[in-house]
Amino acid sequence: MNEARPLKIGIIGAGRIGELHAEHLRYRVRGAELAAIADINKERLAALAAALDIPKTYTDYHELLEDDSISAVVICSPTDTHSTIIEESAAAGKHIFCEKPIDHDMARIDRALKAVAKASVKLQTGFNRRFDPNFRHIKLAIENGKIGQPHILKITSRDPAPPPVSYIRASGGLFLDMTIHDFDMARYLMNSEVKSVFATGNARLKEIGLAGDIDTAIVVLEFANGSVGTIDNSREAVYGYDQRVEVFGSQGVIAAENNTPYRVVIGGREGFYSPNPMSFFMDRYTESYLQEMEAFVKSIINDETPPVTGEDGRIPVVIALAAQQSLKERRVVDISQITDLAAAH
Amino acid sequence: MNEARPLKIGIIGAGRIGELHAEHLRYRVRGAELAAIADINKERLAALAAALDIPKTYTDYHELLEDDSISAVVICSPTDTHSTIIEESAAAGKHIFCEKPIDHDMARIDRALKAVAKASVKLQTGFNRRFDPNFRHIKLAIENGKIGQPHILKITSRDPAPPPVSYIRASGGLFLDMTIHDFDMARYLMNSEVKSVFATGNARLKEIGLAGDIDTAIVVLEFANGSVGTIDNSREAVYGYDQRVEVFGSQGVIAAENNTPYRVVIGGREGFYSPNPMSFFMDRYTESYLQEMEAFVKSIINDETPPVTGEDGRIPVVIALAAQQSLKERRVVDISQITDLAAAH
Amino acid sequence: MNEARPLKIGIIGAGRIGELHAEHLRYRVRGAELAAIADINKERLAALAAALDIPKTYTDYHELLEDDSISAVVICSPTDTHSTIIEESAAAGKHIFCEKPIDHDMARIDRALKAVAKASVKLQTGFNRRFDPNFRHIKLAIENGKIGQPHILKITSRDPAPPPVSYIRASGGLFLDMTIHDFDMARYLMNSEVKSVFATGNARLKEIGLAGDIDTAIVVLEFANGSVGTIDNSREAVYGYDQRVEVFGSQGVIAAENNTPYRVVIGGREGFYSPNPMSFFMDRYTESYLQEMEAFVKSIINDETPPVTGEDGRIPVVIALAAQQSLKERRVVDISQITDLAAAH
Amino acid sequence: MNEARPLKIGIIGAGRIGELHAEHLRYRVRGAELAAIADINKERLAALAAALDIPKTYTDYHELLEDDSISAVVICSPTDTHSTIIEESAAAGKHIFCEKPIDHDMARIDRALKAVAKASVKLQTGFNRRFDPNFRHIKLAIENGKIGQPHILKITSRDPAPPPVSYIRASGGLFLDMTIHDFDMARYLMNSEVKSVFATGNARLKEIGLAGDIDTAIVVLEFANGSVGTIDNSREAVYGYDQRVEVFGSQGVIAAENNTPYRVVIGGREGFYSPNPMSFFMDRYTESYLQEMEAFVKSIINDETPPVTGEDGRIPVVIALAAQQSLKERRVVDISQITDLAAAH
Repeated sequence: MNEARPLKIGIIGAGRIGELHAEHLRYRVRGAELAAIADINKERLAALAAALDIPKTYTDYHELLEDDSISAVVICSPTDTHSTIIEESAAAGKHIFCEKPIDHDMARIDRALKAVAKASVKLQTGFNRRFDPNFRHIKLAIENGKIGQPHILKITSRDPAPPPVSYIRASGGLFLDMTIHDFDMARYLMNSEVKSVFATGNARLKEIGLAGDIDTAIVVLEFANGSVGTIDNSREAVYGYDQRVEVFGSQGVIAAENNTPYRVVIGGREGFYSPNPMSFFMDRYTESYLQEMEAFVKSIINDETPPVTGEDGRIPVVIALAAQQSLKERRVVDISQITDLAAAH
Repeated sequence: MNEARPLKIGIIGAGRIGELHAEHLRYRVRGAELAAIADINKERLAALAAALDIPKTYTDYHELLEDDSISAVVICSPTDTHSTIIEESAAAGKHIFCEKPIDHDMARIDRALKAVAKASVKLQTGFNRRFDPNFRHIKLAIENGKIGQPHILKITSRDPAPPPVSYIRASGGLFLDMTIHDFDMARYLMNSEVKSVFATGNARLKEIGLAGDIDTAIVVLEFANGSVGTIDNSREAVYGYDQRVEVFGSQGVIAAENNTPYRVVIGGREGFYSPNPMSFFMDRYTESYLQEMEAFVKSIINDETPPVTGEDGRIPVVIALAAQQSLKERRVVDISQITDLAAAH
Repeated sequence: MNEARPLKIGIIGAGRIGELHAEHLRYRVRGAELAAIADINKERLAALAAALDIPKTYTDYHELLEDDSISAVVICSPTDTHSTIIEESAAAGKHIFCEKPIDHDMARIDRALKAVAKASVKLQTGFNRRFDPNFRHIKLAIENGKIGQPHILKITSRDPAPPPVSYIRASGGLFLDMTIHDFDMARYLMNSEVKSVFATGNARLKEIGLAGDIDTAIVVLEFANGSVGTIDNSREAVYGYDQRVEVFGSQGVIAAENNTPYRVVIGGREGFYSPNPMSFFMDRYTESYLQEMEAFVKSIINDETPPVTGEDGRIPVVIALAAQQSLKERRVVDISQITDLAAAH
Repeated sequence: MNEARPLKIGIIGAGRIGELHAEHLRYRVRGAELAAIADINKERLAALAAALDIPKTYTDYHELLEDDSISAVVICSPTDTHSTIIEESAAAGKHIFCEKPIDHDMARIDRALKAVAKASVKLQTGFNRRFDPNFRHIKLAIENGKIGQPHILKITSRDPAPPPVSYIRASGGLFLDMTIHDFDMARYLMNSEVKSVFATGNARLKEIGLAGDIDTAIVVLEFANGSVGTIDNSREAVYGYDQRVEVFGSQGVIAAENNTPYRVVIGGREGFYSPNPMSFFMDRYTESYLQEMEAFVKSIINDETPPVTGEDGRIPVVIALAAQQSLKERRVVDISQITDLAAAH
């Protein structure tokens, strides 16, 4: 593809995450042109189109899919619409970037992935954290043998504050909504599939318990390569968004500390104070959101496999379902019991 | 007890740990007098007695127990002799400090504890890490509500290098030999009993696998107060003795970093280098070994319950046995399945 | 000024720093429109205009100054042209952003500032570091009394690698070229004028000594409010761009550590490695360059005094000249000996 | 000297520092025997002798000097008695450890050093900080070329709280009382003599100003090897005893952070808190006080030059006097102006 002719992209969904991708595509992703945006909410649509000078707007995304000048779509609509829009986009011959998760239901995911395969379009799943400079550096260091053979993975992933209970109820539960990012990170960093899962946890916040979910969890993973790992989650870390990773190996250990808004320390009579980690996921992962979109555009321009495939979007859902079962049955659940990871799509 | 008349103490076992306690009792523990030492190895006994000016030496510890001028004994002999010597010491009316673990066998432990109860002597178990300034500070901070209600405990406990396979074979296995310290730390910091255990792990070092043990493990704990925790262990952390703890709570988080021999950072073309943690457990826990012995002596002088009781020595063994069973059966094991913690002694 | 009608800005100088400002004005500064760019180098001009879609280009900046649709200029030309272009821009009624330093010669600076005053246009000097999140946080914390009364300021400011000798020869020397940023930072953080200067230093790099300059320096500052401060400089810190500040006060201390590209630590047999600070000033100060331009645009839109005035551009030159004299005469030089800071413009 | 016959040592002065050395010599320094102690205060003398089981006590130290069984003395009396007691001890043929400073008066120092030379006894000056693990590690790293050629030295040395004004009045002033340690550290780390000094500072605490002293200072040093350095001092760092060093060189940088009583970090809504440095110099430098005494005893046993000589005690006084003159005259003072460092003793 010629650099002089940028890739025309349409965004479906003008909510918070749609707006973020829109800004990046408008100003900061070389080779891309933000050509259109669709949202059922007219005001939101008009406001965003005006702010970012977006040429075309649609209240019905189907019209966007019919626009032949558009090569790719970025799906930022609610989760329960993802798999349908993927199928429709694939049928329309568009390359697809879809926010995570693809769906909570394996059958719907598999149908969407089949549609993508059949249409021979590209599909990238929005596991943006893979593009975070900290975690990417860990990935590379492990690949370069800096810590030898990985033995133990530790992921700490805690949100600063719980979402509204209404969100919780529709979220699919902690494992499908929040831990799913960590399941992806685990596969990414260890470069090995998860073989079995053990999960425990409970609700420390009354309203989350009443909504039938948990807010605090520990998950243990066993990998095909013999490594083991833990993930610990909380919906409420009052000191901010806690996103750390540690990998211990035969020749050393590597760990990512939290990012902070500045590197300032204040010492007084009571001790030395350093700043909390960033509290908002969009501030914390600004760079990774930008880089995932650059990677998506580049994979289309260069006709390469996207760095996070549809299969990469599917497997963390399988792991999450295994974790749900483990929590319920208080035992190790083998991934193969949930579904065959190698199922052909 | 009069400060002018120091407490006369005898040590049984002149090995590495016996020598450490001997030095502390000889020079640094106020109120104590190191009166005698026993060991079957004559040369070792003579050398230590000479170096530290210890008045009486015995190759048969029974003679030390018969010495009426001695009020207390410090048992530093091999683990399989602990319970017998506890019974004999109790029968001789001596107060007892016993290195961990009391035994690997619940029946022998219970018999020893009964003998102690019957003789109304004091028994302190050698879980020295409770006296480490880092961990004690965490304990106090939690008690003072600094992190609110504890939700998640994380213990990282990795040895710098594996012991000889001969040691491994006699050790009772990773959980009874190494993780037992972490089980004690978990109870101490969370101020709550462990209700259930899940464990996984494997041998990454061939010789340890051949010896029938594991060297890498993750243990998940559920506490009576609703908290959850993980412990991760390795027998071989090439960068040193890794001893960290983190407790996450409703109002914050508290964590202990590793101690290092100095606080020096060197920056060069390749980055900034800071020192490894201390590699040797005696260097790392120097202060805690001293303070546990001071606490033992003080508990006798003031006729108080020792800060780490016989029961505190017993429960981690129960947890370790539960962990062994969990590893084997790949499921959560309730502590109550192993034995009743509240069993009367 | 109406937000619907963005402020039209022209850039004079399409070099490295001109390109940086161009990108920010093109895509990231709300309320601004990059309308034109001037540079004597045709190829550079054309390339940048094409890359950023800049409507108008001029090889003679005088033509840009004649364009009545342009409200403000950003001067990124060589230092020895700054004062002349400021005068011409003021005469043309343009608001002015000028890269530091305004000039090395006090008379030329004063003439330029007079022209600005006469024309009643705004002038902002490019001391971007004031907008760095670290240093701004320190400024605010001091203002909020977090460390009480400031007593001691310490600035460490070391470049990763020396510029070419040709650059050094034209630079005006270390104090006017490099330390000038630190002189500005000192005034900014301490909120007090420098009263006297002592400087020492030497050339550790032979080629810099041969060029008649020094590459290593310590400067001591006495402030009107009674505080004292040191600056230490080097042209070659092999571990990266070292930019730290510490302020010690009656109630505490505040310090900014270096920014690093990621927060990853690797532990191995030889110790724990953390990353070097960013090496390139544009990577280190990305955010501050963006924010200074936003502040400039905002000051014009809101008709406010710019946050870094012409006088703020002038005083660091005075301090640098005092430092040069101190180095030569090995004594404290009072700022009043150089020129009257209160000279009316 | 035979290890079986320990070196008999007498302490002169049973104050705070005398007590510290007494404890070390009694229990922790191999090869030494604490044989006697002298103090004019009978109660203090008796209490310390009883606590540490010291065989002989004297209210007149001359009697201790007459005791032929004693090979060495440790002088912990007030500063103005040091030089006289050194002369008397040398005349009595005792090896001498003398607390810093030897004296504030160059003539008295020189007379004392001559007496030591004439008697051919050993004299070690109490610059204990050289034995601190942090600073020693820096010294070794520099010697091993880890940072290449040293260019810039930075010492931060701040006391947690000012001494009583009565102490200040008799102290000889900030430079002779407090900075003198830093002057010694500078020579030690840079392995080069100080060639010239510039000093500035003032009194921020009213009562110290009224006593004719300063409490806040910056000193700039030029070394014979071309390096430059700064020292910054304060008598009152409310966050604790701040003792840091940084050396910047052609190939890197090395720095010592403060020691803290534990390595625990607490995160809450307001940020992450880490502990203050130790506040009390005896807690901070426990290890260095022990090691300097071990080195003194070893130098006598092995008949070697002590690691901190009389000349090492003399030169920092010269530098302090130069700093006093610089402060007064606001100019660089060459050390050669004060006295010839190479003066033969």
